[in-house]
Amino acid sequence: QWMMLDWKPRRSDMLIDPFGIGKIVQDGLVFRQNFSIRSYEIGADRTASIETLMNHLQETALNHVRTAGLLGDGFGSTPEMSIRNLIWVVTRMQVVVDRYPTWGDVVQVDTWVCASGKNGMRRDWIVRDCKTGETLTRASSVWVMMNKQTRRLSKIPDAVRAEIEPYFMDSAPIVDEDGRKLPKLDDSTADYIRTGLTPRWSDLDVNQHVNNVKYIGWILESAPLPILESHELSSMTLEYRRECGRDSVLQSLTAVCGTGVANLLDCGNVECQHLLRLEQGAEIVKGRTEWRPKYAHSMGGVGQIPAESA
Amino acid sequence: QWMMLDWKPRRSDMLIDPFGIGKIVQDGLVFRQNFSIRSYEIGADRTASIETLMNHLQETALNHVRTAGLLGDGFGSTPEMSIRNLIWVVTRMQVVVDRYPTWGDVVQVDTWVCASGKNGMRRDWIVRDCKTGETLTRASSVWVMMNKQTRRLSKIPDAVRAEIEPYFMDSAPIVDEDGRKLPKLDDSTADYIRTGLTPRWSDLDVNQHVNNVKYIGWILESAPLPILESHELSSMTLEYRRECGRDSVLQSLTAVCGTGVANLLDCGNVECQHLLRLEQGAEIVKGRTEWRPKYAHSMGGVGQIPAESA
Repeated sequence: QWMMLDWKPRRSDMLIDPFGIGKIVQDGLVFRQNFSIRSYEIGADRTASIETLMNHLQETALNHVRTAGLLGDGFGSTPEMSIRNLIWVVTRMQVVVDRYPTWGDVVQVDTWVCASGKNGMRRDWIVRDCKTGETLTRASSVWVMMNKQTRRLSKIPDAVRAEIEPYFMDSAPIVDEDGRKLPKLDDSTADYIRTGLTPRWSDLDVNQHVNNVKYIGWILESAPLPILESHELSSMTLEYRRECGRDSVLQSLTAVCGTGVANLLDCGNVECQHLLRLEQGAEIVKGRTEWRPKYAHSMGGVGQIPAESA
Repeated sequence: QWMMLDWKPRRSDMLIDPFGIGKIVQDGLVFRQNFSIRSYEIGADRTASIETLMNHLQETALNHVRTAGLLGDGFGSTPEMSIRNLIWVVTRMQVVVDRYPTWGDVVQVDTWVCASGKNGMRRDWIVRDCKTGETLTRASSVWVMMNKQTRRLSKIPDAVRAEIEPYFMDSAPIVDEDGRKLPKLDDSTADYIRTGLTPRWSDLDVNQHVNNVKYIGWILESAPLPILESHELSSMTLEYRRECGRDSVLQSLTAVCGTGVANLLDCGNVECQHLLRLEQGAEIVKGRTEWRPKYAHSMGGVGQIPAESA
């Protein structure tokens, strides 16, 4: 899970960039950081992978909090959260990708937080092409508090609210909430199942938990290769249900909606449903992904896939 | 495999930094680039993983070549190599890690190339802590040319030599060559075997091959967890024997030298031998790794491992 870092009260010196890693803009409520896409962050298509994009979102969120005054040395909570053993956990993530950047591109990531209901926090991101200003990606996530000992969700205590509310912007989600219910997949409704997925040592974060970006890779492990080859992920909705530890063994299930993989070339866009679950059955992540034909942008038409990639 | 980018003759405008990704220093023969270690590049120990370090080496090598005048749009060869269908492939890599950086640290990577025998090229790297100048990592690699069609190794044609020789420095390897032969592991001599390792879609590079940094992750898949938990990789020698494609199924074998895992706490440093092979038997990578107890640096003594990590 993503754990948020210590929050400190806003101070005037927050507006500088003590770590050389980004800066606060727009009345002190938006954090901005640039990333140069590296050669090892691109895949067979020469474009950045969805995991790379999610890593940049994570890095920006953490640096936002760090730049806002963190003094500690790692992942954590506000002082009032620490007293109460509370940590942040992500429950929902929606991402829309208009275009994937390529090696050498520089992207500018803006992030900010808002209230979400009575006991949640929303964090939004917008990723732009640094040169043209074109929007590449938008993402919106919801976070709640969890007790570190009991692993139960918690309301936001008043003392914590007083710490974090000064940081809240008042703005609509950057991605419209996809209210469609995510159906529960099982062995009979899934088209593809990958079993025996286990965390590697290098997948663990400092809390010995699996980072939520890794979950995305596992979800895509059961996406059929013909889709990965001919299509690119255009949007994704994930609901995080349960933590995954270092000894977990997972199964990844995917159902392809509509006509299925055989008719990929005819149907243009494709929608998939996903479930990541423990072998014992407990749900870890539920998700929906949407895919558009590759080269739809540059070729000016949906479904016009060069023969060698089809 | 790592493919080198187009080489162009040196020109005076190479000394500037057109991509904002690094710069040529020291008489135009050394390329230097800084990296800020990101939150998703650190693991459970809060330090950068060996894969992260290797990614930074790869990125610096590619940017070195790009800054030296690449005009094309991807991984490639010099003009004279292209005419002859030649590409660079790595055959040997030695890495020594004195200290692993942590999140927020900025490292400075220097890289340069030298002749290696009659038909090879050596590429060396030195990684320093940007703030203190302390050397963190040294690495030395050997590259040869391969015909892209026949996949056979090639001598360096004179026309290619004329292109690349102006870039060669005349210096000893930054890591002394480890001349010890790497013994061939098999089912009877290996202590740990992981089978069924397959490339994920996102492991493929633009040549649809598995990047050589991924091999390191697979090699470590068969390293026993007690070593990963109590020790850190201090040095590594890899010999690349064969390419691995997208449909390969691999096995990772590890032998722990000497007294074995049971006596880890007594014996301090640990040495392992590794083999990555195809299920059909062909060798992909042979390797040797050395490990030192974690916290040996900060605790001032080898083998003093805090109880919670032991």
